[in-house]
Amino acid sequence: MIRSFFNVEPDSHFPIQNLPYGVFKPEGESMPRIGVAIGDYILDLSVVEKAGFFNNTAVKGKKVFEQSSLNLFMGTGKETWSEVRSIIQKLLSDKDPALRDNASLRRKALIPQADAEMLMPVDIGDYTDFYASKDHATNVGAMFRGRENALMPNWTHLPVGYHGRASSVVLSGTDIHRPQGQIKPPEAETPIFSPCRQLDFELEMGCFIGTGNQLGEPIPVGQAEEHVFGLVLVNDWSARDIQAWEYQPLGPFLAKNFATSISPWVVPLEALEPFRVQGPIQEPEPLAYLKEDKPGSFDIELEVYLKGKNMQKPERITRTNFQYLYWSMAQQIAHHTITGCNLNPGDLLASGTISGPEKETRGCLLELTWRGKDPVELENGEQRTWLEDGDELMMTGWCQGEGYRIGFGEVKGRILPVRTLNI
Amino acid sequence: MIRSFFNVEPDSHFPIQNLPYGVFKPEGESMPRIGVAIGDYILDLSVVEKAGFFNNTAVKGKKVFEQSSLNLFMGTGKETWSEVRSIIQKLLSDKDPALRDNASLRRKALIPQADAEMLMPVDIGDYTDFYASKDHATNVGAMFRGRENALMPNWTHLPVGYHGRASSVVLSGTDIHRPQGQIKPPEAETPIFSPCRQLDFELEMGCFIGTGNQLGEPIPVGQAEEHVFGLVLVNDWSARDIQAWEYQPLGPFLAKNFATSISPWVVPLEALEPFRVQGPIQEPEPLAYLKEDKPGSFDIELEVYLKGKNMQKPERITRTNFQYLYWSMAQQIAHHTITGCNLNPGDLLASGTISGPEKETRGCLLELTWRGKDPVELENGEQRTWLEDGDELMMTGWCQGEGYRIGFGEVKGRILPVRTLNI
Repeated sequence: MIRSFFNVEPDSHFPIQNLPYGVFKPEGESMPRIGVAIGDYILDLSVVEKAGFFNNTAVKGKKVFEQSSLNLFMGTGKETWSEVRSIIQKLLSDKDPALRDNASLRRKALIPQADAEMLMPVDIGDYTDFYASKDHATNVGAMFRGRENALMPNWTHLPVGYHGRASSVVLSGTDIHRPQGQIKPPEAETPIFSPCRQLDFELEMGCFIGTGNQLGEPIPVGQAEEHVFGLVLVNDWSARDIQAWEYQPLGPFLAKNFATSISPWVVPLEALEPFRVQGPIQEPEPLAYLKEDKPGSFDIELEVYLKGKNMQKPERITRTNFQYLYWSMAQQIAHHTITGCNLNPGDLLASGTISGPEKETRGCLLELTWRGKDPVELENGEQRTWLEDGDELMMTGWCQGEGYRIGFGEVKGRILPVRTLNI
Repeated sequence: MIRSFFNVEPDSHFPIQNLPYGVFKPEGESMPRIGVAIGDYILDLSVVEKAGFFNNTAVKGKKVFEQSSLNLFMGTGKETWSEVRSIIQKLLSDKDPALRDNASLRRKALIPQADAEMLMPVDIGDYTDFYASKDHATNVGAMFRGRENALMPNWTHLPVGYHGRASSVVLSGTDIHRPQGQIKPPEAETPIFSPCRQLDFELEMGCFIGTGNQLGEPIPVGQAEEHVFGLVLVNDWSARDIQAWEYQPLGPFLAKNFATSISPWVVPLEALEPFRVQGPIQEPEPLAYLKEDKPGSFDIELEVYLKGKNMQKPERITRTNFQYLYWSMAQQIAHHTITGCNLNPGDLLASGTISGPEKETRGCLLELTWRGKDPVELENGEQRTWLEDGDELMMTGWCQGEGYRIGFGEVKGRILPVRTLNI
């Protein structure tokens, strides 16, 4: 097993096998740059780049890491990502002296994460949200339309998805004011203007597109993963009462576009390769353009923690796994582009809420509480049907290797009270 | 009435009262720049800017017109747009000698439109599509759900809208390959992969956001128009068979994201002021955050022409008006931001299909042919239920003043056969 000259704890999210990319600013400096996480540190790739370590790759002279977003590097393509990654891995390994034995370079290139501010890693062009968990779609359908009509007839034939709002995707740590808008409570004859009363999270993962496609040229399912740069955690905050009133017939709009949070470290798809698994059996068999010839899922453990303002510590409220998703990332990409839609470097494709078959593996409060009927019981005696002001929500995830973890860090955010509106 | 020293015909779309902004490249040159249309010419604003005419405004020194998109200028705000517009109007008027009597400046600054290539005017961040025509929503609802359930209960309470795909918004003149994808014909038990059999257009108008808002800070309806930079024509190409199968429960996705076409000239909202009219009476009265205290619509005549490959000339197939829209632009903006969603300079908000109450004022083939039951009869004896390969579709629009027109030019595109797929 490859080891770093760093001492990285076995439960750290960021061993030498991971090396996720992020954008950061060291304390007291103004220029954003790109780094990889290693243990509790960040390796500043703009320093590594200037020192010439990437001069035998296609990024030479392009300053791809002296940037405020990953987009330029994302557009260089899979081969270059792989070359750059192996150079970084070598540089951090205990076998290679170039960084290990160069104290001056180490001082310049290694920054404690505690002394850095993380920034949005990607300039997101378009954001798409899928609905790829069969358990989630079945549960939601059962609540809204009854058990017999739970899944729409199209659901098992195509990865249902919709366009989301790119401008309001925010970085982990951004606190969210409770939204207000138009709702129609069951007892009301007409809609009212109100603070959201059914504020929810959705545990999702997001896939960042590296290289895109030309308008009119679909990406074949067998090549789709080559377009994936990496993955992050996504919290698709949802205002359920606003959603229930607005969503027909054109889908969710204001119930989602007030904020979507992502984790700061983008884990390369290559780092997930040892954790590739077969997803659920697909029955009926998908049409040819969606048929994969290799396993397309990954064994990623996922957890959600909640910490109310009266709680001493965060409490886990769900535990699930990425491999429950019925439709794979490759299938999502093949479907997204089949009529000709063009993807660009930096586009975000989220999975939709990730729920498994058991109650405790459900990925949002809507399902966990069965639309508020069965509240979540917390250790301090409190209950939650929906998120309350002051609640902090934290999602985390990792792949468990032998003696190491490929982690995604965390995505978190706190609910602040409604703002006073100037309208 | 203000007049130009130019001879502009009364039916020209681009008299001195209009002055729409566009991005263009003069023949043989490589650098895009920004201009305004005047008659059959373009006034190159990068030349006007260099000559110092804007030095008393906030754009001084910013090179806002030496750009490949309008975004930088859009972000300067309503007051600056207005100042710049009045300087340009003065410069082109028959009373002002600065350009009229300066042959050298005229040679540098005025380019025949025939000698220029128009480019995408705006770098679109997010694209939203509304559903603001009551006649359209009623017709579509009646076809899919029957007359009694035609309008969803939410429709008269809020401007229904959904997020569209920004990456596939293309400029007028871009030809469109017939998309292919998953459809479920009525006679089929399971879906099939097929070229789209029900290809349609949608006549819409699009509003470009100039200045945006911060996340969490809604735009009050009374201030919403201050954020509007200008308007264009929009053709929201639609694959109806793909849409019918995919759209539940999260809305249209692949049926729309293969292409959306816009016209190249962005008509400033200020130019439309003389044509402001009251839209339809809103009953029930909207909630306070959607209530306007002045007329919020505009009298814009709109037409759609079709030219099949066997036709000698384009034939008009619909004629309608922007003022049929039930929900105004200001209401769309106030609603879009009410839960906190942030808009940015360059965001596009389209109206949805613009249909009036009469059959011949319907804005798409789905309605004109009542889902294919009542084909459009063409003068050469052909019929159209849906668009055929080789059909060219052209939309145009203008406000009719006394002796002049504020025109939008046109948005056009031709249907090419399906591409052979490499999948």
